[in-house]
Amino acid sequence: MTEGQTSNVPFEGVDSCGCGCGCNREDLPWSGRGTDLPITGCRFSLYPMTDDFVSIILGALDKTDASFVWSQSDALSTVYRGKREYVIDAVAALFANAWRDGVHMALEGQVSRGCPGDVSGDSVLSCEGEAPNAATVEAATQPALAKLSLYPLGVEDYIDDIAKVWYLAEERGLNPTSIHYATRIEGSIRDIFTYFNDVCALMEQTVSHYVLHFTINVNSPTDEEE
Amino acid sequence: MTEGQTSNVPFEGVDSCGCGCGCNREDLPWSGRGTDLPITGCRFSLYPMTDDFVSIILGALDKTDASFVWSQSDALSTVYRGKREYVIDAVAALFANAWRDGVHMALEGQVSRGCPGDVSGDSVLSCEGEAPNAATVEAATQPALAKLSLYPLGVEDYIDDIAKVWYLAEERGLNPTSIHYATRIEGSIRDIFTYFNDVCALMEQTVSHYVLHFTINVNSPTDEEE
Repeated sequence: MTEGQTSNVPFEGVDSCGCGCGCNREDLPWSGRGTDLPITGCRFSLYPMTDDFVSIILGALDKTDASFVWSQSDALSTVYRGKREYVIDAVAALFANAWRDGVHMALEGQVSRGCPGDVSGDSVLSCEGEAPNAATVEAATQPALAKLSLYPLGVEDYIDDIAKVWYLAEERGLNPTSIHYATRIEGSIRDIFTYFNDVCALMEQTVSHYVLHFTINVNSPTDEEE
Repeated sequence: MTEGQTSNVPFEGVDSCGCGCGCNREDLPWSGRGTDLPITGCRFSLYPMTDDFVSIILGALDKTDASFVWSQSDALSTVYRGKREYVIDAVAALFANAWRDGVHMALEGQVSRGCPGDVSGDSVLSCEGEAPNAATVEAATQPALAKLSLYPLGVEDYIDDIAKVWYLAEERGLNPTSIHYATRIEGSIRDIFTYFNDVCALMEQTVSHYVLHFTINVNSPTDEEE
C-alpha cells in the first residue's frame, strides 16, 4: 500500500478526504476505520430518461455479471467494491447493457480508493483472470459524451498527474476540453470506460487516496451547434 | 479572500485540487488562472426519468429565475456561477419547478469554490437582496432523498469541519447515515438545499477551496424495506 496508510490509524498529514474521515473521532460513525486492502469502489446511479426506466435498469442488471465485485443498492445509488479493473468492468457493462437506441441515458459515478474512512469488508478481492464482462464492454462502440472531475487527495505535487490524465485523453482521441470544474471528453462507451480505468491506474501509482467523479451520457437530444 | 490565494498564482502548499490546476503549466489549458473573486459555481444535470423529460426540463427552466447567476449549458450539464446563495437558490428552484407528481427525478451536482484553476469571468456578482426564487424554494416541501460527498481541499485539519457538517444534518432532522463514499440524508427539497447552502457557508469559513458533490432524488420507486 502507499505511504501514510495503516489500518485503523488516521491518515496524518496533508490528506483532505471529504467523504467522512475522522478515524480518531469516537463521536463520528467512521471512527477507527482505515484499510490496507487495495479496494476500489464505484458508487453510481443510472438514469434512463424514459417511462420504461425500471425495466431498462432491471434488464441491464440481469445481463451484467457482477460476481467479481461486492455490490449494494439503495434508493439513490449502487456501489461496487473490489479490484479496480473488475469494478470498472461491471459499471461499464451495466451501462452498455442498458443502452437502447434512441433512449437518452446517463450514468453518474464516483470511483474512490484509499479513503481513510474506508473499511476492509464489503469487498471481493479473490477473483483473478479476465473481467467477466470484457466482451460486452469491447463491443460497446456506441458514441458517448462524458465529463470528469478528479481529486487526488493528500499530495502536494499532483500537477504532473493531472497533466498525464489530460494528455492521455488527447492520445486516446477523446478530444478533451476544459470546462468549469471538469474536463469534458467524447468517444465510444468502451473507450471512455477504458480511459477511466487507466486514469484510476495512474492515480494508484502516485496517490494513496483519490476520487474520480464522472458523468457519461448517450443519445443526447441537445444540439450543440445551436 | 482566504489564505494562499492570489490571482494567477498557483495555489502553493497542500492543495490537491483535481479539477485541473497547474496554473504555472503553460502546456495546460488552465495555465495562468486563479481568481480572488468570491465565485461559487454549481455544475449540475437534471434527470427526469420519463419520456417527457425534455418538456419537464424546458418548463422548469422557464419558471426559474436565473438572472442572479451566470449560466451555460451543454449536452452534459449546466453550470451556474455567482454568489453562493443565488447559485443554490437557482438550482433548488429548478429542481422544485421540475417536480411532477409520480415522476422519478434526480439532480446530480457539484458545488465548487476556490479552485486555483478558476477564472474571474463567467460570473454575476453584482446582485443584492432576497434570492429571486426564495418563495419557490420555501414552498418545496416535497420529500426527497439525497447523498453528499464533501472535499475540503488544501487543509490539513479538516476533521472539525466534517464533524460540523454531520452534526448540522442531525440538528436539521435530516437523519444522516454513513454509506461508502458518501453521507445519505432525507428531508424536504427545501430543507435539503438549505442544508447544502449552509454546508457551503461553513466551508467558506475555513477552507479556500472545497467541492461538494451531491445527488437529490424524488419519487423513487425503490422500496427499501424489501
